[in-house]
Amino acid sequence: MAAAAILPELATQVLIPVAAAVGIAFAVVQWVLVSKVRVTPERRADGGAVKSGPSDYLIEEEEGLNDHNVVVKCAEIQTAISEGATSFLFTEYKYVGLFMGIFAILIFLFLGSVEGFSTKSQPCHYIKDQTCKPALANAIFSTIAFVLGAVTSLVSGFLGMKIATYANARTTLEARKGVGKAFITAFRAGAVMGFLLAASGLLVLYIAINLFGIYYGDDWEGLFEAITGYGLGGSSMALFGRVGGGIYTKAADVGADLVGKVERNIPEDDPRNPAVIADNVGDNVGDIAGMGSDLFGSYAESSCAALVVASISSFGINHEFTPMVYPLLVSSVGIIACLITTLFATDFFEIKAVDEIEPALKKQLIISTIVMTIGIALISWLGLPYTFTIFNFGVQKTVQSWQLFLCVAVGLWAGLVIGFVTEYYTSNAYSPVQDVADSCRTGAATNVIFGLALGYKSVIIPIFAIAFSIFLSFSLAAMYGVAVAALGMLSTIATGLAIDAYGPISDNAGGIAEMAGMSHRIRERTDALDAAGNTTAAIGKGFAIGSAALVSLALFGAFVSRAAISTVDVLTPKVFIGLIVGAMLPYWFSAMTMKSVGSAALKMVEEVRRQFNNIPGLMEGTTKPDYATCVKISTDASIKEMIPPGALVMLTPLIVGILFGVETLSGVLAGALVSGVQIAISASNTGGAWDNAKKYIEAGVSEHARTLGPKGSDPHKAAVIGDTIGDPLKDTSGPSLNILIKLMAVESLVFAPFFAAHGGILFKWL
Amino acid sequence: MAAAAILPELATQVLIPVAAAVGIAFAVVQWVLVSKVRVTPERRADGGAVKSGPSDYLIEEEEGLNDHNVVVKCAEIQTAISEGATSFLFTEYKYVGLFMGIFAILIFLFLGSVEGFSTKSQPCHYIKDQTCKPALANAIFSTIAFVLGAVTSLVSGFLGMKIATYANARTTLEARKGVGKAFITAFRAGAVMGFLLAASGLLVLYIAINLFGIYYGDDWEGLFEAITGYGLGGSSMALFGRVGGGIYTKAADVGADLVGKVERNIPEDDPRNPAVIADNVGDNVGDIAGMGSDLFGSYAESSCAALVVASISSFGINHEFTPMVYPLLVSSVGIIACLITTLFATDFFEIKAVDEIEPALKKQLIISTIVMTIGIALISWLGLPYTFTIFNFGVQKTVQSWQLFLCVAVGLWAGLVIGFVTEYYTSNAYSPVQDVADSCRTGAATNVIFGLALGYKSVIIPIFAIAFSIFLSFSLAAMYGVAVAALGMLSTIATGLAIDAYGPISDNAGGIAEMAGMSHRIRERTDALDAAGNTTAAIGKGFAIGSAALVSLALFGAFVSRAAISTVDVLTPKVFIGLIVGAMLPYWFSAMTMKSVGSAALKMVEEVRRQFNNIPGLMEGTTKPDYATCVKISTDASIKEMIPPGALVMLTPLIVGILFGVETLSGVLAGALVSGVQIAISASNTGGAWDNAKKYIEAGVSEHARTLGPKGSDPHKAAVIGDTIGDPLKDTSGPSLNILIKLMAVESLVFAPFFAAHGGILFKWL
Repeated sequence: MAAAAILPELATQVLIPVAAAVGIAFAVVQWVLVSKVRVTPERRADGGAVKSGPSDYLIEEEEGLNDHNVVVKCAEIQTAISEGATSFLFTEYKYVGLFMGIFAILIFLFLGSVEGFSTKSQPCHYIKDQTCKPALANAIFSTIAFVLGAVTSLVSGFLGMKIATYANARTTLEARKGVGKAFITAFRAGAVMGFLLAASGLLVLYIAINLFGIYYGDDWEGLFEAITGYGLGGSSMALFGRVGGGIYTKAADVGADLVGKVERNIPEDDPRNPAVIADNVGDNVGDIAGMGSDLFGSYAESSCAALVVASISSFGINHEFTPMVYPLLVSSVGIIACLITTLFATDFFEIKAVDEIEPALKKQLIISTIVMTIGIALISWLGLPYTFTIFNFGVQKTVQSWQLFLCVAVGLWAGLVIGFVTEYYTSNAYSPVQDVADSCRTGAATNVIFGLALGYKSVIIPIFAIAFSIFLSFSLAAMYGVAVAALGMLSTIATGLAIDAYGPISDNAGGIAEMAGMSHRIRERTDALDAAGNTTAAIGKGFAIGSAALVSLALFGAFVSRAAISTVDVLTPKVFIGLIVGAMLPYWFSAMTMKSVGSAALKMVEEVRRQFNNIPGLMEGTTKPDYATCVKISTDASIKEMIPPGALVMLTPLIVGILFGVETLSGVLAGALVSGVQIAISASNTGGAWDNAKKYIEAGVSEHARTLGPKGSDPHKAAVIGDTIGDPLKDTSGPSLNILIKLMAVESLVFAPFFAAHGGILFKWL
Repeated sequence: MAAAAILPELATQVLIPVAAAVGIAFAVVQWVLVSKVRVTPERRADGGAVKSGPSDYLIEEEEGLNDHNVVVKCAEIQTAISEGATSFLFTEYKYVGLFMGIFAILIFLFLGSVEGFSTKSQPCHYIKDQTCKPALANAIFSTIAFVLGAVTSLVSGFLGMKIATYANARTTLEARKGVGKAFITAFRAGAVMGFLLAASGLLVLYIAINLFGIYYGDDWEGLFEAITGYGLGGSSMALFGRVGGGIYTKAADVGADLVGKVERNIPEDDPRNPAVIADNVGDNVGDIAGMGSDLFGSYAESSCAALVVASISSFGINHEFTPMVYPLLVSSVGIIACLITTLFATDFFEIKAVDEIEPALKKQLIISTIVMTIGIALISWLGLPYTFTIFNFGVQKTVQSWQLFLCVAVGLWAGLVIGFVTEYYTSNAYSPVQDVADSCRTGAATNVIFGLALGYKSVIIPIFAIAFSIFLSFSLAAMYGVAVAALGMLSTIATGLAIDAYGPISDNAGGIAEMAGMSHRIRERTDALDAAGNTTAAIGKGFAIGSAALVSLALFGAFVSRAAISTVDVLTPKVFIGLIVGAMLPYWFSAMTMKSVGSAALKMVEEVRRQFNNIPGLMEGTTKPDYATCVKISTDASIKEMIPPGALVMLTPLIVGILFGVETLSGVLAGALVSGVQIAISASNTGGAWDNAKKYIEAGVSEHARTLGPKGSDPHKAAVIGDTIGDPLKDTSGPSLNILIKLMAVESLVFAPFFAAHGGILFKWL
């Protein structure tokens, strides 16, 4: 019998909601601080604009531009972007809602049919001599959890978009006062999203466990099996968010660039470009709402994976609440650690120059990791019994609390390693991106060859980091160790999301500055914010992929336990064909999403060309382009094109499980995992490197960069081609792949009881 | 006890060498026929050239060009290409020879140390109560077999190169008489290579088995374990051939295109381009010698895999010779079947127009498959006992001869399916390539996005075909079934190689026509031959990859048996980290090879630019460029750059096996296999599609194609960029990947006794 944890149940029951509440309160405070920047011009009694204060000399005024007009224009553009994003998301949610509704019914029917919709209690799956709740109850609660997860994910993405479109113009306006002020505005907005998402994810999960617990009582196994639906809901929503948003944003971006930058030679975000509003809307629906849903999904899934494995371990049998919800405690501590970290960016230090931005963001990663390591040590000591046993595919294994600390910590630090490697390969401060930029000298072809090679090479260290984390955590605490390692990597999600969301907000801020006709000095400031944002976006994707690999493995392990297969032997034909087909799925999925972006971009190009050719005075800036048609093209294309790849991911586990059974499905999961991780990392980094190679040439900071530039030179044109190719790689297919691997794993776990009972009909029939 | 086969041992002992001899004789006949085309101008008594016959009106004469000069020029260029290729191959062989020598010593030392270099007999591995030859003997014979395989592979590649450089100018000259004559010349030359390689591979293996057998006597297990070294030798040589040749050819090709076509706007193969000779040499050392070694390696490995599994099956225990060498019988029948097939291309039908070329090549695939199916049925009936047992990881399984027929046949037909799918995705007669061409309308970026998506998509059906073959053959006859399925796919290798080698020969012929200043009508004919060759090259790569997947799995299975592990469970940390790292290796390898091509191409570009800028009269054609420097750049780059990727592949199994042991190594093999196959297929097809999209625009055959052209238009420029990016994908990294997966598997098998005895020191130490 294991010893009890130091922290009593009551303290745990208080700690978790309090941490969540603190996180939400902190987000609200940040929101209030952002809202202090006014986008309505203040009026003096005589009708002119007032100065904000005696020291605030704005660039516009120095250069003789009218402050009032600029502010009004910014507000207008902001409204257009916000309305476009809101309208797209509502359209998207309508279609996705339909799909999710059907899927919820499927969950209920499939899981309910396991015991023929019987309302009688059944013997437990793991502890044979106990009685558990009926399969029908699990069907009902899984369905509820699924809907809950989907709704939380949807709200997370939507709120993120709202704050982003609220902060973009404010960042632009603050950029008039200095790069530091602009940085803080964008970063605070990112923090709103990060803390809101982390805290609400935790809170909803906590409440659901407590409410479901009223029915389930001592049946922890059934409770956490049902709770897994929460992860599935979150990830399903994330899939459509990422794919739909990704197609939207890249169709607009590629379309705008191909005609605007390449053919018409007008700057990025020029208001004469008809696709410019669609492009800026895209940043918000793809990079903000999509990514928010994605990371929420990872977070929900790793919590569920850890909980479900915990429920079949000895602390579950002992009914001790504190160690059972150890995964939630880790997340709670994470919110506090991130809160402290955020203060370092917004309050303890101040950014004064452009070259301080990237170090400041990097410091965020390092500080949060260090603070969190202490936090994990503390909570592992308080929240876990000194020794306890867990089940490893039927075999018991004794684990000590410091070993579990190591599991969480290795995940956390592996995340940092992945982050730094990603930075090295995608930041233009280092030689890899500079080499890619240099290869533009001989044209677009060598740029693409070097860029692809860079992406392939950038996979090596992250994979070793992931492999090392898996080996250590698996050796120490089996699948539970892997699950908490994933959670460790995601425990600083609030900070991760803050620096991640900061990127697209800065991107938008630059767009608004350009469209509002503001000074080029402001544009330079927002560009510097944006370049750092490119790197942080790549880092964020690195985290998302790394944690997805760990989460998927943990879910996969839980699935195998639940599906009652003892080994997944590669050398059986059933498993091997699953493995090779699974490894193919990321390619199939990428083919679909890339082709979708390509086709949508072609349509966008035709429309933009049509407007430039047919609307008189457009190039001269005397007539306004028809922004709405471009918004509609992106919307229609993404809604239409997100369904097939979404269906591929959602239906594959069902089809394989029903027709070929759990062994083949295990192979598919393992194959998709090990193959998808590589493509996802290389696609993200290749795209990020191309983007920053282009920015490197444009900025012309070093002697070397100036020999390649300026804008419009042949090397720069080659770099623009690379950047355009990278767009769908890094923002559509790449980041969607980690959802693919997670989602298939969590879906398999949710449906495991059904597959174990009724799956594999094809092989049975043969 | 199993029944005997119908075919007595004596008949088998006659049949195999006779088939090999017939194959060699057929190759010689084809060579003689090719040699009938004269590259020295025939002289009349008065010193002028004579006509070949009354009906042979040559295009040159119609157009008033001097026949004598043209022939002399062709002969000169041919000599330059042949000398360049020979000199490169000798340099390459020198370095590779050193590496192979060291590796041979390693094999001897590692395998000898298994029993401490003891000369005493040991108990057998599979049949415990028998005595087998000492481990030291296996070390010696494995080393000999390794050297034998390497030398055979080397000779195969070298002879292929010789006949190709012998036939290229002859094809050009025959093109003056008509497309049919040129086709037959190129195709016959391809057949020389195909038959020589298939027959000599079989013959050497057959002789080695019989000679080794004198020592081994009844110890079949030891005999075939030693013979496996033959496969390792063949594949190691192939690795360097493919990588070195691939870097050579693409550095030259990319370098020549970037300056010549893109900057200077001169046609491909223009004699003013300093890199043109290097480019044409490259076709011969990369696409001919490299590919010859590669397919020889596949063939040797699948034979070895099948033999080694056969040796531990019941017909091995019964010492019945005929079923033991059933794999060789399949290959023997294959030679005869291909011989019949070849006659359909060269004698039974005649090609009269350009559009008959591709159907004629396609017919070769179909005819050889049908004839071979009958051949397999026959030889399975005659050469196998009606029922026999094989071992499936310790469990006995009864197999009937018709089931084994199905295994071979499913491999054969899966190859055909892969071939047709590849054709669909890479031929410009179908919509996928036409869509890619169409996307050039909006520039290089969309071309690349569509091309990558096409490659990803083209993976789907081949993977299903491979998965189906594996499932069926594995279910019917375990790993032995998979091995013979691989052999089935490769049984028509003579035909496959003939149509594969035909491509680069035609490519060279076009180059010679251009350089010799021959009429554009001749160039059109050779271009048509070449376009068909692009598709057949992609088909050949499809076969090579598909068979590599099957072979690797069979070798992997044999390795697992030999290494005495009973399951390869994905859900153990040792295996899983192997799996994910293994899946990463193809990316690492591709990064190295692509970067090598890129860097070498940059050097080539600089040299070509330098010559154009510094040599007066070069653009006007009054001065000759310095071809030799470009040849040297390609040579030096490829020799230097082939070592790191080669070492990665050769050393990984050793390092993993020694440090982490056989379970992790199993994971690495499985991961590399399932991940590598996808990248290899997609890279080959993407590259092939880009090449043909460019040719589609250039040829301008359809209404649609003409709207995109002509040469020099913006869409055409975008297509050229795609083509250039595709070069290293389809000719360097892609085709090398199938060697990576095969080689790691066969190497693991050869070293399995050592790993089983002394491997995994890191885990033992922990």
